[in-house]
Amino acid sequence: MAEFDLVVRNGTVVTAADVSRCDIGIKDGRIVALAERLDTSGQVLDASGRLVMPGGIDSHVHIAQDGDDGTIMADDFRSGTLSAAFGGNTTVIPFALQPKGHSLRAAVQTYHERAEGQCLTDYSFHLIIADPTEQVLGQELPALVQDGYTSFKVFMTYDDLKLNDRELLEVFDVARREKALVMVHAEGYDAIKFLTERLERAGRTDPYYHAESRPIPVEREATHRAISFAEIVDVPIMIVHVSSADAIEQIRWAQSRGLKVYAETCTQYLTLTADDLKGLNMEGAKYVCSPPPRDKESQDACWTGLQSGLFSVFSSDHCPFRFDSPAGKKKQGERTAFKWVPNGIPGVEVRLPILFSEGVGKGRLSLQEFVALTSTNHARMYGLAPRKGSIAIGADADLVLWDPDRKVTITQDLMHHGADYTPYEGMEVTGWPETVLLRGTVIIDKGVQTGKAGDGRFLHRSISPFASPRGRRPTQYD
Amino acid sequence: MAEFDLVVRNGTVVTAADVSRCDIGIKDGRIVALAERLDTSGQVLDASGRLVMPGGIDSHVHIAQDGDDGTIMADDFRSGTLSAAFGGNTTVIPFALQPKGHSLRAAVQTYHERAEGQCLTDYSFHLIIADPTEQVLGQELPALVQDGYTSFKVFMTYDDLKLNDRELLEVFDVARREKALVMVHAEGYDAIKFLTERLERAGRTDPYYHAESRPIPVEREATHRAISFAEIVDVPIMIVHVSSADAIEQIRWAQSRGLKVYAETCTQYLTLTADDLKGLNMEGAKYVCSPPPRDKESQDACWTGLQSGLFSVFSSDHCPFRFDSPAGKKKQGERTAFKWVPNGIPGVEVRLPILFSEGVGKGRLSLQEFVALTSTNHARMYGLAPRKGSIAIGADADLVLWDPDRKVTITQDLMHHGADYTPYEGMEVTGWPETVLLRGTVIIDKGVQTGKAGDGRFLHRSISPFASPRGRRPTQYD
Amino acid sequence: MAEFDLVVRNGTVVTAADVSRCDIGIKDGRIVALAERLDTSGQVLDASGRLVMPGGIDSHVHIAQDGDDGTIMADDFRSGTLSAAFGGNTTVIPFALQPKGHSLRAAVQTYHERAEGQCLTDYSFHLIIADPTEQVLGQELPALVQDGYTSFKVFMTYDDLKLNDRELLEVFDVARREKALVMVHAEGYDAIKFLTERLERAGRTDPYYHAESRPIPVEREATHRAISFAEIVDVPIMIVHVSSADAIEQIRWAQSRGLKVYAETCTQYLTLTADDLKGLNMEGAKYVCSPPPRDKESQDACWTGLQSGLFSVFSSDHCPFRFDSPAGKKKQGERTAFKWVPNGIPGVEVRLPILFSEGVGKGRLSLQEFVALTSTNHARMYGLAPRKGSIAIGADADLVLWDPDRKVTITQDLMHHGADYTPYEGMEVTGWPETVLLRGTVIIDKGVQTGKAGDGRFLHRSISPFASPRGRRPTQYD
Amino acid sequence: MAEFDLVVRNGTVVTAADVSRCDIGIKDGRIVALAERLDTSGQVLDASGRLVMPGGIDSHVHIAQDGDDGTIMADDFRSGTLSAAFGGNTTVIPFALQPKGHSLRAAVQTYHERAEGQCLTDYSFHLIIADPTEQVLGQELPALVQDGYTSFKVFMTYDDLKLNDRELLEVFDVARREKALVMVHAEGYDAIKFLTERLERAGRTDPYYHAESRPIPVEREATHRAISFAEIVDVPIMIVHVSSADAIEQIRWAQSRGLKVYAETCTQYLTLTADDLKGLNMEGAKYVCSPPPRDKESQDACWTGLQSGLFSVFSSDHCPFRFDSPAGKKKQGERTAFKWVPNGIPGVEVRLPILFSEGVGKGRLSLQEFVALTSTNHARMYGLAPRKGSIAIGADADLVLWDPDRKVTITQDLMHHGADYTPYEGMEVTGWPETVLLRGTVIIDKGVQTGKAGDGRFLHRSISPFASPRGRRPTQYD
Repeated sequence: MAEFDLVVRNGTVVTAADVSRCDIGIKDGRIVALAERLDTSGQVLDASGRLVMPGGIDSHVHIAQDGDDGTIMADDFRSGTLSAAFGGNTTVIPFALQPKGHSLRAAVQTYHERAEGQCLTDYSFHLIIADPTEQVLGQELPALVQDGYTSFKVFMTYDDLKLNDRELLEVFDVARREKALVMVHAEGYDAIKFLTERLERAGRTDPYYHAESRPIPVEREATHRAISFAEIVDVPIMIVHVSSADAIEQIRWAQSRGLKVYAETCTQYLTLTADDLKGLNMEGAKYVCSPPPRDKESQDACWTGLQSGLFSVFSSDHCPFRFDSPAGKKKQGERTAFKWVPNGIPGVEVRLPILFSEGVGKGRLSLQEFVALTSTNHARMYGLAPRKGSIAIGADADLVLWDPDRKVTITQDLMHHGADYTPYEGMEVTGWPETVLLRGTVIIDKGVQTGKAGDGRFLHRSISPFASPRGRRPTQYD
Repeated sequence: MAEFDLVVRNGTVVTAADVSRCDIGIKDGRIVALAERLDTSGQVLDASGRLVMPGGIDSHVHIAQDGDDGTIMADDFRSGTLSAAFGGNTTVIPFALQPKGHSLRAAVQTYHERAEGQCLTDYSFHLIIADPTEQVLGQELPALVQDGYTSFKVFMTYDDLKLNDRELLEVFDVARREKALVMVHAEGYDAIKFLTERLERAGRTDPYYHAESRPIPVEREATHRAISFAEIVDVPIMIVHVSSADAIEQIRWAQSRGLKVYAETCTQYLTLTADDLKGLNMEGAKYVCSPPPRDKESQDACWTGLQSGLFSVFSSDHCPFRFDSPAGKKKQGERTAFKWVPNGIPGVEVRLPILFSEGVGKGRLSLQEFVALTSTNHARMYGLAPRKGSIAIGADADLVLWDPDRKVTITQDLMHHGADYTPYEGMEVTGWPETVLLRGTVIIDKGVQTGKAGDGRFLHRSISPFASPRGRRPTQYD
Repeated sequence: MAEFDLVVRNGTVVTAADVSRCDIGIKDGRIVALAERLDTSGQVLDASGRLVMPGGIDSHVHIAQDGDDGTIMADDFRSGTLSAAFGGNTTVIPFALQPKGHSLRAAVQTYHERAEGQCLTDYSFHLIIADPTEQVLGQELPALVQDGYTSFKVFMTYDDLKLNDRELLEVFDVARREKALVMVHAEGYDAIKFLTERLERAGRTDPYYHAESRPIPVEREATHRAISFAEIVDVPIMIVHVSSADAIEQIRWAQSRGLKVYAETCTQYLTLTADDLKGLNMEGAKYVCSPPPRDKESQDACWTGLQSGLFSVFSSDHCPFRFDSPAGKKKQGERTAFKWVPNGIPGVEVRLPILFSEGVGKGRLSLQEFVALTSTNHARMYGLAPRKGSIAIGADADLVLWDPDRKVTITQDLMHHGADYTPYEGMEVTGWPETVLLRGTVIIDKGVQTGKAGDGRFLHRSISPFASPRGRRPTQYD
Repeated sequence: MAEFDLVVRNGTVVTAADVSRCDIGIKDGRIVALAERLDTSGQVLDASGRLVMPGGIDSHVHIAQDGDDGTIMADDFRSGTLSAAFGGNTTVIPFALQPKGHSLRAAVQTYHERAEGQCLTDYSFHLIIADPTEQVLGQELPALVQDGYTSFKVFMTYDDLKLNDRELLEVFDVARREKALVMVHAEGYDAIKFLTERLERAGRTDPYYHAESRPIPVEREATHRAISFAEIVDVPIMIVHVSSADAIEQIRWAQSRGLKVYAETCTQYLTLTADDLKGLNMEGAKYVCSPPPRDKESQDACWTGLQSGLFSVFSSDHCPFRFDSPAGKKKQGERTAFKWVPNGIPGVEVRLPILFSEGVGKGRLSLQEFVALTSTNHARMYGLAPRKGSIAIGADADLVLWDPDRKVTITQDLMHHGADYTPYEGMEVTGWPETVLLRGTVIIDKGVQTGKAGDGRFLHRSISPFASPRGRRPTQYD
């Protein structure tokens, strides 16, 4: 057996399938051996008393998505991936957003420039299609899929991003032909606008009314619409950031009919409620995200969805804005109305600890499910497997050493993101990422940054095995 | 690194999580190393071009369950486990059946005697509780669970086996207290008897009427009843051999409410239909099993259930009787009526090839799902993990080397079971188990038996992590 | 036109179809003319400002059902029908209960003797089948249906009454052959007994635990079971006194599949909750009935069921016991445990006012729906139409003159039943029955009894048009 | 009693509530007396052996809706109401269509001009809102509702008619404020256009592809969307011409939640299937209507919906175009593609006979349900009760004398519409309208026209009691 660059010794290794005590031998950044005991003359990392899990993959984060309107996102790729890494992640998949009127290829180029040399974790890009011109549909998308950008995101709401029904169908159709996976933000634009204007006319402009402007039926309707369009086109889709019992009911109905409808939920939908938006002095603005947090019943439905396999992936939808800054959530909320409050909350750093504590710690999820929902399924869903997402021979040595017993109270002080607050302030969790390895290099060592911006590399992705409209998925053994 | 007894080299290793190319190092019957390349001075088994998967675990087989009424099952433990091994399995969990009026402990002893020294694969026993006396409920069951018999089976039908509603509730209550997992055969006795007598009065005694005597509402009603009793008692249950779209609808409803209702389906419900019971000259009797095969709609629902995670396990419900023998299916069917046809069909040997061919081969299931459904989930569900059910460090070296491209037409000639027919005669499959290792020993070598009766050992089982009524399941990292 | 015995003048006449202002001409006890203005030299009853509706038909009341165990029902036929009449009813259908071991025909005879000459309203009997012997199934029932007893009731619970599954199927089968309508009390005996014993062992014997001993899943399971048996036998059934959202969900599912499953709900399930059973000093015993009142969610589901046509009939399930008497609810509750508290509550007198006030008055039901749910549908469902249940030419002149504006606080003082309390004490309603006519005779005149015991006659009933298993219902125009 | 203008003698009178034998006394066009026997010195119409039912109300017919594009509808008000009358109807509610860019009030005026003096039956107008400008929403609609046009129709498809989501919400909002009832054509425009273009590109332009261009998910999606918008705005809606099991499932789901979603189905969805569009030589074009006829499963679902009360009204959606004429279905289909085939089929004349024969005659519906579904419920739903829709004192004497035993083979020869074919050619029915009275005047006498154009009057309508967003419906007794 070849000598190793590094051996992770004595940990409890967790994959989506197994929990086993073994050493991990790493060479050239990849896992080359797993054994009860690996002798080495090289470096050894002691993992006694630690869970060793595949590094988290957060397939839903927004980084450096500064808007044309002057909106400044609180994280660039440097801080965003730093925060991700401290949260136990080794890969993130943010978005390359095509502004209306621009080329999608150019957008991809822009985001590459923003990320290049800045990242502490590996990264790839989903493509946000805001302007599905013939050029985009007929030429750019096929070429970009070929180049390894194998997933698109479409929005059913937001002024600058929403596609109309015909555009949705056309993008779905391209996805079908190119075997790309489409992610759908399912909230209905017109209903939100109708309700927002009604609330504004009634003087209801506080952050809380953000939740009332996009109630559950708005999400449910868009979810049903997206599912129906996918059925009509015959293409798999991924409904992202599902927040409500009603939307879950739609997804279950679709899955029970054999439709290839996949789904994601996020930290905020397990832990926050609309009441959190009621905070005085614009505190409520800290929780403004879309869909908004709902209620206890929907939280329970999200948990049931995670347990029953309805959700394939669990993400953060990290979308950080500053609270207290000139164009921040507070000022915007004070100056104007909820609809101008920058829409999104930070969360990439606490996704794993919160799911671990609330899920594994409280007996709702097994360790294997935790790994599947936070890493393995992301890799498989978005074309990163078998390189990413597991602890298996040949995979990148992306690892997190996890202290299952450490109790932490989440506070802004602990965070490494660019936001000036965390919506989870004060939440107590048990279990915390201690040490993180990216392709065999320790980038976080017991809570201290040891890696550097630029350590992270861009990842070309394969066609998702879940994106095939006929049959469930291609086999992977040849 | 320690020297190995055996290295399985160059295979494509599949687990419920991963597909990776690596060597497997085995020592003392266990997997001690996985690596890109393992050097050894010992034995090497070449797995080039083969999938290497954890040996199949069939958690639902009936072996040597001879009845007091003279019914002779076609397989004893010798032939039953031989057939299992040739089908790629390394562990089976048959049943120890308590005859009414007898001690359950004594029944366990009886089955141990029947199995001792006869088995080619490892084995354990579920307990069939036919007579839940106070003694059984209050003393025998708690002690037996303690001794590693951590799952019970109860029947809602069959003259000799059925429990009434009160008995079901009492057994569920013991299961809750002892954290045992209850398997439920969900068909309603009284309705079947009512319909059977009506059919007999009308002279409808051909084997086909077996299907009409237990139509889908009979299964659906019993499924709903079992789910409701489990909800009332607050205990997880496993509904076995689910056959129909209606029963699946009930299970989905239960899971969507967060009830811990697990489910199993079997080979026959994916591939046979009630029409198969219409064969002339008593040929239909070859397909008499319960629940009976249904129709295309129910087959589709079973596939959807496998894909969506509704079913945790896929089994054979192997229950072999001879067709042409004095008390065989043919004679019994000719002499009397469908209700006297021995009830059950053989299938332990073809479970893996059929699911592989119809599932993986036709793009319905991934390789990982195949392994989960046929091995890993059985081990986890019934307290055999982490020793069984995966290819992981420390696990028993139970492996099957699978030729994914071999085309086989299933015929009785190929079978090693004690039955004189296979209900899958003539079915063409692609993919076949070639070589099987039990705890590091080759028991089937390219289709030739190399192991011997007695190689298989009895397995004490842990409490199932899925049997916990509160919370979903205990974490397993300590 | 013939001269009239009586003209009801100037009322607003309501039927299940219409609201119209007209006079009603009555001769020989029947309605012979409806017109804008009827001249008469005979008697005139001024109905100005009053709604004139068909007299209520309460198809679910228990009268003089004294048990073998010494249980004394608080109402005999004299007080029971007096109370009914004061409540605006002109027909009741109580039960003739077959004690186990006795002939059903004899039971019918017994109840005839109890009722003969005592009734102020018309009456008929449903048959409670507690002992479905061959004699009962094969001879008595067919003969009794022929004689006009065209509906049966079966119980899935209660020590003395419950049928097992086979018996249910056999009774359903007779109903199918004889075109009788089967009413089902859907609660599962074994689960109730299991829970009751568990509660008793835990010392939880207060009346409130009556509700906990038969929780919603107990009703839902029995409802699903009854529906499935009806599907298997292919016979229509009527699920009586449906109390919970879960049971309603089952019924809706059945109806959506085209199964002929009819349903009834009652006053208590719209207005009481399980919390009412928590009253101190055994006050909770006043609300002990089965199924028990549930919660707000189930109340809402009952209302939705009434509005959407899921429920065909609305009844009282009047089953009166004294609170404060030697064998009354209080003493039995104090002496023993909830399970010995006589099970049932009075309500025949307030059914119409409460539904009117909560339903019509609060805009939940139209006047036509009110009449359909309280009178017309009962007549049609149980073979009394076209003689009863409407204001139409040829129908019996059974009328109630209703003051829609009268505000009444319900108190025991106002009641005419034999019970010593009303569970609706203190409830305020708007709308009250003022004057009641039975076959043209005023039996209640502005709140004063003018009829006498014996005015009411026994009614032979036709086959229910809803009892036909094939097709929906026979046409009635020939 | 006043003398009568006419007595209808000896008929079997059917209402939504009752079947009774009685005479009907008519004076000044209204029903003034019902009695077992009415003496008269005036005219007598013998109804022996006949059912006497309220004249049919067809609340969904298109008459004289000639398009700006030169499309000529085959019926003007003269032929349309003649055909309606021969089919047993006495009231129709066609549409006043606002062309885009025009005033709605002007459109109403146009249709008044077209109808004035031409109608054989009474009539009113629903308003089709194709251009919901501020002027329309803020001024015209409130005024028109005030003037008795109390229902709107909106389209979710068709180039000239479709409203976008925002417009739907705005119209719903006006309906809520004005208590108008909104009828929704629920098919999604963009999906249809997407599929149509795809079919055309593939050269699939035969009439059959009309069905493939608007498959069931297109209807289901729009139905769900309309329901969700109604929930968001909190307003009742009526989904018209529901054709599929999937759309019915959505409506049932809405009703089970207590949402005020009403529904209509039509003759074609009970009797035709998509296969009818496959006729050669453009015969398929005869069945082109929207939604298209579906399959047996959806037909069954429509029947179940009629039986269970899910559907309140049964209409024809009469929308007649000539088959063989310069701009007819055949020529348009030959010249171009299915999408240019005029969309709609005639049916006002056969609605009652077909529902009677298939419904009442085959035991699926009672006579009372037939009357409710074809007349009474239309009157109540659209603000014509109590004047129209029943046989009750004070109501208009709109009657049909029905021969329940007459067997008729439907052929174009028998029809009085302007179309040159009937899609029901060759269908055999039992039961036929014989004589029709409009406000006491015989307009059809045993199959001979006796009334004349201009006998029919325009009907101002009241607010629908079903249009109230709060509470179910206003009571009607004051």
